[in-house]
Amino acid sequence: MSIDNAVRRVRDLIGERLSTSPSVLDLHGQNESYYAPTPPDAVATPHSTEEVAAIVKICGEEDCPIVAWGTGTSLEGHALAFNGGICLDLMEMNKVLEVHPEDMDAVVQPGVTRERLNEELRATGLFFPVDPGANASLGGMAATRASGTTAVRYGTMRENVLALEVVLADGRIIRTGSRARKSSSGYDLTKLMIGSEGTLGIITELTLRLQGQPESITAAVCAFPTLDAAVTTVIETIQSGVPMARIEILDPVSIRAVNISGDMTLPEKPHLFIEFHGSQAGAKEQAETFGEIAAGNGCEGFEWSANQEERNRLWHARHNFYYASLKLQPGCRALSTDVCVPISRLAEALLETAEEVREAGLTAPIIGHVGDGNFHVGFLIDPERPETLETAKRLTHSMNRRALRLGGTVTGEHGVGFGKKPYMTEEHGEGYAVMAEIKRALDPKNILNPGKVVDIN
Amino acid sequence: MSIDNAVRRVRDLIGERLSTSPSVLDLHGQNESYYAPTPPDAVATPHSTEEVAAIVKICGEEDCPIVAWGTGTSLEGHALAFNGGICLDLMEMNKVLEVHPEDMDAVVQPGVTRERLNEELRATGLFFPVDPGANASLGGMAATRASGTTAVRYGTMRENVLALEVVLADGRIIRTGSRARKSSSGYDLTKLMIGSEGTLGIITELTLRLQGQPESITAAVCAFPTLDAAVTTVIETIQSGVPMARIEILDPVSIRAVNISGDMTLPEKPHLFIEFHGSQAGAKEQAETFGEIAAGNGCEGFEWSANQEERNRLWHARHNFYYASLKLQPGCRALSTDVCVPISRLAEALLETAEEVREAGLTAPIIGHVGDGNFHVGFLIDPERPETLETAKRLTHSMNRRALRLGGTVTGEHGVGFGKKPYMTEEHGEGYAVMAEIKRALDPKNILNPGKVVDIN
Repeated sequence: MSIDNAVRRVRDLIGERLSTSPSVLDLHGQNESYYAPTPPDAVATPHSTEEVAAIVKICGEEDCPIVAWGTGTSLEGHALAFNGGICLDLMEMNKVLEVHPEDMDAVVQPGVTRERLNEELRATGLFFPVDPGANASLGGMAATRASGTTAVRYGTMRENVLALEVVLADGRIIRTGSRARKSSSGYDLTKLMIGSEGTLGIITELTLRLQGQPESITAAVCAFPTLDAAVTTVIETIQSGVPMARIEILDPVSIRAVNISGDMTLPEKPHLFIEFHGSQAGAKEQAETFGEIAAGNGCEGFEWSANQEERNRLWHARHNFYYASLKLQPGCRALSTDVCVPISRLAEALLETAEEVREAGLTAPIIGHVGDGNFHVGFLIDPERPETLETAKRLTHSMNRRALRLGGTVTGEHGVGFGKKPYMTEEHGEGYAVMAEIKRALDPKNILNPGKVVDIN
Repeated sequence: MSIDNAVRRVRDLIGERLSTSPSVLDLHGQNESYYAPTPPDAVATPHSTEEVAAIVKICGEEDCPIVAWGTGTSLEGHALAFNGGICLDLMEMNKVLEVHPEDMDAVVQPGVTRERLNEELRATGLFFPVDPGANASLGGMAATRASGTTAVRYGTMRENVLALEVVLADGRIIRTGSRARKSSSGYDLTKLMIGSEGTLGIITELTLRLQGQPESITAAVCAFPTLDAAVTTVIETIQSGVPMARIEILDPVSIRAVNISGDMTLPEKPHLFIEFHGSQAGAKEQAETFGEIAAGNGCEGFEWSANQEERNRLWHARHNFYYASLKLQPGCRALSTDVCVPISRLAEALLETAEEVREAGLTAPIIGHVGDGNFHVGFLIDPERPETLETAKRLTHSMNRRALRLGGTVTGEHGVGFGKKPYMTEEHGEGYAVMAEIKRALDPKNILNPGKVVDIN
């Protein structure tokens, strides 16, 4: 039993689609956070569920770790092979298998990216709403329970995956859920797999809920005198029942990044970026209600835009925020982290975080999916000054503890991976032991993405 | 180790709140379906999570089955003590513990009923949307993953429970989730417990998402020449993006029941009952769009009602449908079952079912949450003619098989309990074995509601 044996046997199975070339290994050892490159022992590129099952079975027999890989854009070291083993690159399982316009669902392989799916859907009048910053693979998005800017209206991956096909640690293939919109038929294995980060099974197929493309989209940008005023505006808007499609908060440092990256000239103040979806009259009415609430909270420089080009530029800058923020300090890397709190505590969480960042003398844009109480900090790390990484880690620790103190969670959408594991006991108490019991039941040899989410040894 | 010992020890713990009086036992052995009364050995009425934990611990030590009890309105024998043991009546844990209007959530004990919660919320401008037919307890609703008429707009219990407190089989108390709107922090234990029907843990506290009371509600009733025309109307309305709050389909037999029970005079044809929530202008616009689509599908006798009294009468008749249907044949009981299919297959499922019912000569109203592809059949059973029960069981079997053949599930919202267990292997395949593995990991002695959902011995 050894990793070497596993690699040999998988090569026998899939030939050249098992690679040990240094450049391929390096590529699959990279990440978008601060972790050092961690190449796996081999990279396998399966083309079917049956191949995935056969590979996992071999890995089980050989006690070889197996780590699923999509676009490599996760932020907490999820897909790094810290224990070596085989990286399972699912990006060649990338077919949109079925689209059912009447049922508003689609069946896809895990290597389809969210943008690819939406391109394929364009002519149907439907779209898939979940939009993390990266153009991530849908398999990876399900595995990390990803969300993004539209979760406030359409939900996260949790609400938008109807069914999965999953390969278990012993090579069994199961199908969870169905194309029915709802079910009370037994334990919710779909939701158990979503967010399990490849530690309970490998997702080989997804059935996704789709949404109708809105008839009309209206967007706005507005500046506020304080973060508090911006958050209050959001709370009052939600309470008024206006179904915002997107509502993002950006602190002044974030605005600077967006200005640089998007070639814009927004004032360096707290901002809300908002979008409304609906009928022509509906989107307009929502926008007007919002405008009144914002004005009541001291909003300045309110700007509407039903113009698609302008809107695209705005959201493009927002979506590329991670990359934009890197431009604030050329040559730097980022430690990007996220927490989520009840929205009534969001202003407090944001302000205390901003104050700590200021005191520490770091540059760290703060940006949030404010409708969900979820926000991100991108601590900029100077590779020449290792103390900046240490400071960023200290501030991240402080953010996590604060989120828990305020009744929230240490990650709203990035996931646990390796980086958030130290907070699991504090967040979940005895529930963390229950997660380990489930992991032990489904993967007793701990071959699936070992060392992530939960330890069982 | 024995049930008798457990009963004695629980009496030592909670005194008179452990009852073995025949009338109390009988009351906790009843159900609203066709199962014979099945009284437990004792009924314990805890007042706190700690008491629940202590009772469960005793039951574990004594190998005594323990079945949680709410309002006793489940339909698949969920709460019947088929293996004897202690019935845990949670209806005296019935406090609304916290309401957070800014965060639009509430923390409740499991014995609070949905109507009680909404009464307490009235002044806040918020409401809890999930509305199964019965005025069920919120703990029971979570345990069975209940939904109702508003799921098409607001989701089921799955989407509306943020966090739980749960007592596990060994007496440990865990908290799953938090008041944050979303989280990627570890396995989704909240969703694992929702729908587990008391077989993985006893829910002792729930944190629920609330919704803003809509500014305006518009309702309509319209008759269609065929079930098919009604279903097509719904599909087209959903595709048009109109956010219906409720959309129910009723077959002619159901209309007869509603007419009798609600003192109404609707024509005995397939009907849709619809409701729109929104701003004044929004609800009106939605209603108009719907009206055009319905007219295009041959809708007859379209009737709007923004009048609250009329609307209440209509929905009251719908909500009391189960009891209304019993009036079609005085003295009868009902075997009420539900399935859920992709909406594109709904017309087929409904028509084939109706045809089979007609051929068999039974009376069985068919009613559906058509926006979700979920429908119910209430087979009327004449206690004097046992063959009617046998026929109803045969037709139920046929419905379940049909739902699976059409890509659906054998239960959209009633749950598995005892009655749907025979279909679990066909529906879930190897996934059903995974459910057993999870049950075995969390309740190795099988004391929590044994014999329901999944067997592990």
